[in-house]
Amino acid sequence: MTVVKVIEKLKLNNAVLIEGLPGVGNIGRVAVGYLVEEMGAKKCAELYSKWFFPFVMLHDNYKIHLLKNEFYYVKAKKKGQRDMIFLVGDCQSLSPQGHYEVCEKILDYAEEIGVKEVMTIGGLATGDLEGKERVIGAVTDKGLMKKYGSLKIDFKAGEKVGYIVGAAGLLLGLWKERDKDGICLLGQTTGFPIVTDPKAAESVLATVTKMLNLDIDMTKLEKKVKEMENFIKKVEALQKRALMDITKSTQQKGAKGDEQLRYIG
Amino acid sequence: MTVVKVIEKLKLNNAVLIEGLPGVGNIGRVAVGYLVEEMGAKKCAELYSKWFFPFVMLHDNYKIHLLKNEFYYVKAKKKGQRDMIFLVGDCQSLSPQGHYEVCEKILDYAEEIGVKEVMTIGGLATGDLEGKERVIGAVTDKGLMKKYGSLKIDFKAGEKVGYIVGAAGLLLGLWKERDKDGICLLGQTTGFPIVTDPKAAESVLATVTKMLNLDIDMTKLEKKVKEMENFIKKVEALQKRALMDITKSTQQKGAKGDEQLRYIG
Amino acid sequence: MTVVKVIEKLKLNNAVLIEGLPGVGNIGRVAVGYLVEEMGAKKCAELYSKWFFPFVMLHDNYKIHLLKNEFYYVKAKKKGQRDMIFLVGDCQSLSPQGHYEVCEKILDYAEEIGVKEVMTIGGLATGDLEGKERVIGAVTDKGLMKKYGSLKIDFKAGEKVGYIVGAAGLLLGLWKERDKDGICLLGQTTGFPIVTDPKAAESVLATVTKMLNLDIDMTKLEKKVKEMENFIKKVEALQKRALMDITKSTQQKGAKGDEQLRYIG
Amino acid sequence: MTVVKVIEKLKLNNAVLIEGLPGVGNIGRVAVGYLVEEMGAKKCAELYSKWFFPFVMLHDNYKIHLLKNEFYYVKAKKKGQRDMIFLVGDCQSLSPQGHYEVCEKILDYAEEIGVKEVMTIGGLATGDLEGKERVIGAVTDKGLMKKYGSLKIDFKAGEKVGYIVGAAGLLLGLWKERDKDGICLLGQTTGFPIVTDPKAAESVLATVTKMLNLDIDMTKLEKKVKEMENFIKKVEALQKRALMDITKSTQQKGAKGDEQLRYIG
Repeated sequence: MTVVKVIEKLKLNNAVLIEGLPGVGNIGRVAVGYLVEEMGAKKCAELYSKWFFPFVMLHDNYKIHLLKNEFYYVKAKKKGQRDMIFLVGDCQSLSPQGHYEVCEKILDYAEEIGVKEVMTIGGLATGDLEGKERVIGAVTDKGLMKKYGSLKIDFKAGEKVGYIVGAAGLLLGLWKERDKDGICLLGQTTGFPIVTDPKAAESVLATVTKMLNLDIDMTKLEKKVKEMENFIKKVEALQKRALMDITKSTQQKGAKGDEQLRYIG
Repeated sequence: MTVVKVIEKLKLNNAVLIEGLPGVGNIGRVAVGYLVEEMGAKKCAELYSKWFFPFVMLHDNYKIHLLKNEFYYVKAKKKGQRDMIFLVGDCQSLSPQGHYEVCEKILDYAEEIGVKEVMTIGGLATGDLEGKERVIGAVTDKGLMKKYGSLKIDFKAGEKVGYIVGAAGLLLGLWKERDKDGICLLGQTTGFPIVTDPKAAESVLATVTKMLNLDIDMTKLEKKVKEMENFIKKVEALQKRALMDITKSTQQKGAKGDEQLRYIG
Repeated sequence: MTVVKVIEKLKLNNAVLIEGLPGVGNIGRVAVGYLVEEMGAKKCAELYSKWFFPFVMLHDNYKIHLLKNEFYYVKAKKKGQRDMIFLVGDCQSLSPQGHYEVCEKILDYAEEIGVKEVMTIGGLATGDLEGKERVIGAVTDKGLMKKYGSLKIDFKAGEKVGYIVGAAGLLLGLWKERDKDGICLLGQTTGFPIVTDPKAAESVLATVTKMLNLDIDMTKLEKKVKEMENFIKKVEALQKRALMDITKSTQQKGAKGDEQLRYIG
Repeated sequence: MTVVKVIEKLKLNNAVLIEGLPGVGNIGRVAVGYLVEEMGAKKCAELYSKWFFPFVMLHDNYKIHLLKNEFYYVKAKKKGQRDMIFLVGDCQSLSPQGHYEVCEKILDYAEEIGVKEVMTIGGLATGDLEGKERVIGAVTDKGLMKKYGSLKIDFKAGEKVGYIVGAAGLLLGLWKERDKDGICLLGQTTGFPIVTDPKAAESVLATVTKMLNLDIDMTKLEKKVKEMENFIKKVEALQKRALMDITKSTQQKGAKGDEQLRYIG
């Protein structure tokens, strides 16, 4: 049960999918969320899945909605631009096999509506305090490295890290299996996965706007991040929650009343 | 393998499903269990699932039954009432993806027999000792908030909590995907999920009876809770057991005899 | 992928399935294993499953076989006896949902070959040193309690325990859903699930032979248990291993070389 | 979703499949990887699976690929040799049931292209510092023990170990269910599963070349292991990572900000 619910039927032209799901430093989530808002992108589909947390979220204080990933699109407005579809959302899959299934569903939908290239945005938590403006890249094919060679992307990701976790990596790995190409941009961030890093998001965003030939007013980013704060807190809480589920039970160790639990079978 | 076993075929009229599965403070379980008894509701279906614990329970000391969720119904008896179907049971799903699958099966059955609205009952463990009489609400749509506006439901759930876990939340989130509406009522409770809170159950029950225009004698609640004690203890033990499964293995750390377990492969 | 591989096609008459898979105190495994040997039962089917450990076992020092459950049968030899099919094996399912799926497969096969009644044998670890000769029973239906009422079975299992874990319980719970009957016999044992208790096995065995009107020489039990020792050690090691899998990773905590594992995504 | 992607269609003659996936001491991975290189084996298929880690790996610093198992083949070149197909890769399955599913897919493909015998290579971590040159064997059938009897394989594996974990064992157990035969060779190694042991790999390799009548220059093994170092480090990191996933969450215990996580449902 992983469902893509189409809201508006689309056929895009030479489109690029830009992924920004919650992850390390929430860099993709912040950067792509800002693009969606600034460009007035329109929602065209939602995805929900049994592989997400068995929770519902509350918005506007009283309103329930399932955890979701959402697709927004903008058509090319001037020469040098491409049709774009943005992927944002509340969470990624909770289980390993779920990651594969959700990413395959996303790519099925992307292919169907005419996506040709996939761009994923994530964070690289190095623990270093320096070099944070750096944007690190990895691609499915050498051609893309040349195509985007004039931008200051550090394509030596492999020196810093052995692999890319979750949707930012898997979407590209599975896309390559379909003989298609894509690029991953990672903003370098200091800390622990759970702390949002808007500065790193800004660095990546600057690169993305150049790649896609967009005119985006970056001055509102900080303000927008503040507005998104409530949502971001929930997403961070979700991520913490995932970590805590195991922890909680461990803390129960000394729980009394175990006599009722005599093992049998 | 999630099976709904129909005992009596039904077609209800404008019915409301009222969920009260075990959860935080067992508030839903106690409140809905009391309604089932007081109204003499009749069992119409049972659900069991591979996503429940791999246990059987014992009742009347000697009799084995699978862990189950049960559906009971009452038809409207006077004007201003609606047909009602109650969902109670031994447990919720043990795994995240199981939660989604079991809730979908419940809603499939609900739709089939004519349910129009879903009402879920749960607990909100705040740790606070005060304000326990409060009933907190969340809805799938603003309309329902207005419909039940005259009752003292605090519709600012989102200020206190980011999400609703398990069946109390998922049933509504998935119901909304079917373009249908529902409401969640949460009784505020102090403590840890595993301690039953009949007082909080009473507060929620008072609200539910007003919403559904029922005449329920509440004086027997405390007595009934005592009668249910044996069952509740088992349910609490089940919940503890789930937490202990991981813990137990952790306690094994120092176990001797590991020499026989030389790693190979 | 749970496969029942039929070795000999059978049609039994009014048969009883007697389950003795590894579990608490290995009581079922020892008791039913002894019956298989003493009665010269013939193997008629094997079951293996993706829900078992991803291991193979070695026997005769050099020979590999998958983890399996095995079915052996004996036809009634004299009046007052019934056709019998014994279920023994290396292990039970490793995951909760696997337990349900494996038990359903076992019951599908049992129904197909003519089984009418299921008898499961397990252990009840009370931690008490006394009362070990007691055999505790639970049934799917009152009728069976009467049928076996003349034997000294303590049918107040529910006073000592809330539920029965694993195959010993689930086979009966799922069998009851097929509108068929069965009984569970539990030998009371002191200790931890992982220590084999041949004395408790003997108590249960004495009851089983009366129930099934068998002439079994019990004097060889102790000797046989010694012969089975090597096999039992492996089974116990398997059970320990399951517990250790989580533990091991926890012990890795302080592992160095984590720098190579900078989190990314 | 476990996919075998065929690159070159094959029909082999009386072929042997030689498995060398990452495992204890990476003995299989090093030994079979060396054979692939030295013999100039050609890639004929790749396998990826939702049961692998939800990661992509980076090679050549910038290039993304899914975690994979790979098949390489060499046809017999002289009398006394057989067609050979080698199985190497980045990882094994992350979950128990995944192991079964991936191994079944491997064997489906093997059967299809004409494999008659399966040979798996693994490590046996005894903790002993002595006897490391020993190669320990286990087979699916006595015949194979005789066939390879002239080589110094210690067929008393069962004395040292009760079972063989993962692909090295399961491929043979499941192959036997198809009424086919195979052999497992284990290099004895001292240490913890995560440290590569090229010496033990060399001992096994010497045995394999005799079994398959190959002329392999072993002098380059040490050099090749150094060249493979970067890859091996990643594989070791993957294995550590699997262990750390649980650990990490445990370390979160004292995490602040839990107030936002009031339990609800």
